[in-house]
Amino acid sequence: MAAAKNNRTLLLFAVVLAVLATTGSSARRRWDLRLPSELPLIDEAAPLIHMLRPREAASGSHHLGLRARVPCDSWRFAVETNSVRDWDTVPEQCERYVGNYMMGGHYRADSRAVVDEAVAYAESLNLTGAGKEVWVFDVDETTLSNLPYYAKHGFGEKLMPANFSSTQKIRAEPYNSTAFGAYAKEANAPALPESLRLYKRLQALGIKPVILTGRREDKREATASNLARAGYTGYLKLIVKPQHVRVRSLEFKSGERKKLEDAGYIIVGNIGDQWTDILGAPEGARTFKLPDPMYYVG
Amino acid sequence: MAAAKNNRTLLLFAVVLAVLATTGSSARRRWDLRLPSELPLIDEAAPLIHMLRPREAASGSHHLGLRARVPCDSWRFAVETNSVRDWDTVPEQCERYVGNYMMGGHYRADSRAVVDEAVAYAESLNLTGAGKEVWVFDVDETTLSNLPYYAKHGFGEKLMPANFSSTQKIRAEPYNSTAFGAYAKEANAPALPESLRLYKRLQALGIKPVILTGRREDKREATASNLARAGYTGYLKLIVKPQHVRVRSLEFKSGERKKLEDAGYIIVGNIGDQWTDILGAPEGARTFKLPDPMYYVG
Repeated sequence: MAAAKNNRTLLLFAVVLAVLATTGSSARRRWDLRLPSELPLIDEAAPLIHMLRPREAASGSHHLGLRARVPCDSWRFAVETNSVRDWDTVPEQCERYVGNYMMGGHYRADSRAVVDEAVAYAESLNLTGAGKEVWVFDVDETTLSNLPYYAKHGFGEKLMPANFSSTQKIRAEPYNSTAFGAYAKEANAPALPESLRLYKRLQALGIKPVILTGRREDKREATASNLARAGYTGYLKLIVKPQHVRVRSLEFKSGERKKLEDAGYIIVGNIGDQWTDILGAPEGARTFKLPDPMYYVG
Repeated sequence: MAAAKNNRTLLLFAVVLAVLATTGSSARRRWDLRLPSELPLIDEAAPLIHMLRPREAASGSHHLGLRARVPCDSWRFAVETNSVRDWDTVPEQCERYVGNYMMGGHYRADSRAVVDEAVAYAESLNLTGAGKEVWVFDVDETTLSNLPYYAKHGFGEKLMPANFSSTQKIRAEPYNSTAFGAYAKEANAPALPESLRLYKRLQALGIKPVILTGRREDKREATASNLARAGYTGYLKLIVKPQHVRVRSLEFKSGERKKLEDAGYIIVGNIGDQWTDILGAPEGARTFKLPDPMYYVG
């Protein structure tokens, strides 16, 4: 009975969130929250709110029109395991689900599971590389969280992430590219707290962080100052994409990891939210995939 | 209110399952169900039972002893995204969770999301290879489901899958290796229904299935007859591991895919439940990761 009561409380809470989300003055749905320097976690230990009302998504719909419907949770499984690719929007029916996932503690819990493992792995290493051991970090949704941006702009609309490859077919609205670019230049994104914890622990262990992002050269300065502001200092280097080179994320990132190895560094770990951060030799001795059901980078 | 009522119904159902599971004559917990030729899906459209009672797992515990606890759902996220590796048991606290996941419809729904995508992708292909297009299928927890075995033997105990690499440190109980081996030789495992649907659709499209398993030569015959019994007929070839070669799953499988390509085949797709089915060039043009929170193959 305690569980049922708890469920009712959560259901009520979900309704309050929904009301908050629809009563803004703008015609567009938005999460009216202020998130200065921390992720907006309501209660980290809370059960998963969205599970009380499973939503469904049309699966395979980006290929061949509306097909069988699957639960949003299963859509997320297929996305996070790199089976569903090249999607440019969260399925419409799952916008609220993804919002709840991101804001309700589930996202944070999933990130924690990944980082707990990464920390345990790093602590188990016997470092013999005379200070040449490095750990590669992505930026967006890895070191930095753009949750404040997406909370404001919606979790389901067409997105144009900053590290969108120029060789990809662009179906997203240019407006959002501009908006995200402006947001990135503000250099005010908070740290993803779990990643910052890993970062600090690695430094204490003598493993040097390398920041490797698909953000381009014109955002180097803003990215560097945002990283510093969020607590990421003392990294070995910040590698950004050249401004006008047409290269896909996977090729760019694996190429840069290869350069690190050629320079004598040992990549003991690699963490990112996209599979293009992780796939492509050399991957690093271990890889860690953070959750990101908000957008896809090809 | 309908949702709350539904939740109570499910909670009741979960209790019934739990009672079933503990009233067996054996001292060991078991799922007393008979599963002749189909997966034991009670109600495919049902919400996710285990979510009503989130369980927690000690994360990173296999490295460094008990650490922070994360929800079992987050442990599963980290496992399914290849961040947590080399685990040999489901965390004790998550045994019931994994049982509910596997038996309660969630596993089937996740499999469906992956296969829906695979089918949509296959249907979108413009086949120009003059019949040389193939699709690689793994066996255990891909074409065939060993759920009847695990339902009987428990979802949390030390497992010794048939395709366990001989070069891996063996920490599992030999007993289970024997038991699973005997089960595999019975050749009575049901098809994973979603995989069979994909298999049949591919054949209709003119894409030839190739079966690539870490099961060894001594199980070739039993595997072939099990596949036929479960509905998998007309595949191009069944590739098993040589009996006495010491090779890890990833190297064996990517090596065999390379041989297929060298022989002129075009691997348009590749589906399996383990990352060792999927990683390692050549991976195939697209990869599809089926769920498996029951065991890890390194």
